[in-house]
Amino acid sequence: MTEKTALTPKTHTTPPARFSHGVRKGNILQVAGQVGFLPAEPGKPPTPAGPTLREQTLQTLANVEAVLREGGAGWDDVMMIRVYLTDTDHFAEMNEIYDAYFDEQGLTQPPAARTTVYVGLPAGLLVEIDALAVLG
Amino acid sequence: MTEKTALTPKTHTTPPARFSHGVRKGNILQVAGQVGFLPAEPGKPPTPAGPTLREQTLQTLANVEAVLREGGAGWDDVMMIRVYLTDTDHFAEMNEIYDAYFDEQGLTQPPAARTTVYVGLPAGLLVEIDALAVLG
Amino acid sequence: MTEKTALTPKTHTTPPARFSHGVRKGNILQVAGQVGFLPAEPGKPPTPAGPTLREQTLQTLANVEAVLREGGAGWDDVMMIRVYLTDTDHFAEMNEIYDAYFDEQGLTQPPAARTTVYVGLPAGLLVEIDALAVLG
Repeated sequence: MTEKTALTPKTHTTPPARFSHGVRKGNILQVAGQVGFLPAEPGKPPTPAGPTLREQTLQTLANVEAVLREGGAGWDDVMMIRVYLTDTDHFAEMNEIYDAYFDEQGLTQPPAARTTVYVGLPAGLLVEIDALAVLG
Repeated sequence: MTEKTALTPKTHTTPPARFSHGVRKGNILQVAGQVGFLPAEPGKPPTPAGPTLREQTLQTLANVEAVLREGGAGWDDVMMIRVYLTDTDHFAEMNEIYDAYFDEQGLTQPPAARTTVYVGLPAGLLVEIDALAVLG
Repeated sequence: MTEKTALTPKTHTTPPARFSHGVRKGNILQVAGQVGFLPAEPGKPPTPAGPTLREQTLQTLANVEAVLREGGAGWDDVMMIRVYLTDTDHFAEMNEIYDAYFDEQGLTQPPAARTTVYVGLPAGLLVEIDALAVLG
């Protein structure tokens, strides 16, 4: 039996329920929905990187990447990225931030597929992102 | 060629369209979006377990599990759980129900990753859940 | 290392950001969220097939299928279809269109699992669909 491994970056806040920030089993790696929380600080509740879409999107992408790294993967292994925004007016700005971020990653494989939809999120959060990767 | 198998628990209501409650192909198992419908009764339309978040969440999780079992899998094989709620005010209560449910499952592997977002659902439904599992 | 291949049907509009319309790696194929855009025409912005749910759903399904084909797959390989609608009142009509479409596809394997939720989409778009396939 192949083991399922929980991926828990040291700086991540504790999940608010019985789920893992990411899991890997064989060559499949799934990253849970990440938001723009800063690295956890003892005794402090989870705190977003800032109120803006830019701050939150960049922190969210960093949080997704940390889970990927924890599982021995990187952006090149990612097949699908799901972006949840709260406002259709944020689409153009998110794309700009997204493209600049991935320009800096030096990918050697084609970019992942993506779906973006507009949903409700907890108060103060503007973006949530999850990812599916296939390694190897 | 590996066969794709439809997973159709005997007690499940008939899907309202040409889709399967779950499919398995090789070691990949996908559970379709489940809601809190009670076991089907001949001549009766699909009926939610009750109006409350608790009743619907527990029935939904039972419905997801039935599809997993039909495919020879269980919660330990699940990589990703997607929870769709209709109201951000339901997050804390859903987490409480979710944690208590999984506490009782006696999992031997780390919990699945999860994404929770807030969407619209058909009238009367408060929660929908789907799941991706990797067996073996 | 298995290569990740971008799947870019010739007639598809250019993605609005650094993502692929689809990717395949080994036997896993992920189709990005497709909408009802007509085949791209030079110098013209992406244009929906029409204002109606029927026109957009059929074009969206054709766009998903084009990505599958580009990756050597077809509907029979699809494990999961995610349908994003904007209005719960569209569910019955979408199902009717969906069923008629798949009736014509001559599937030899069971239909994919599916989740349908109601979200916000950019102005003018009534439906978005993505898909996960497992080949072989």
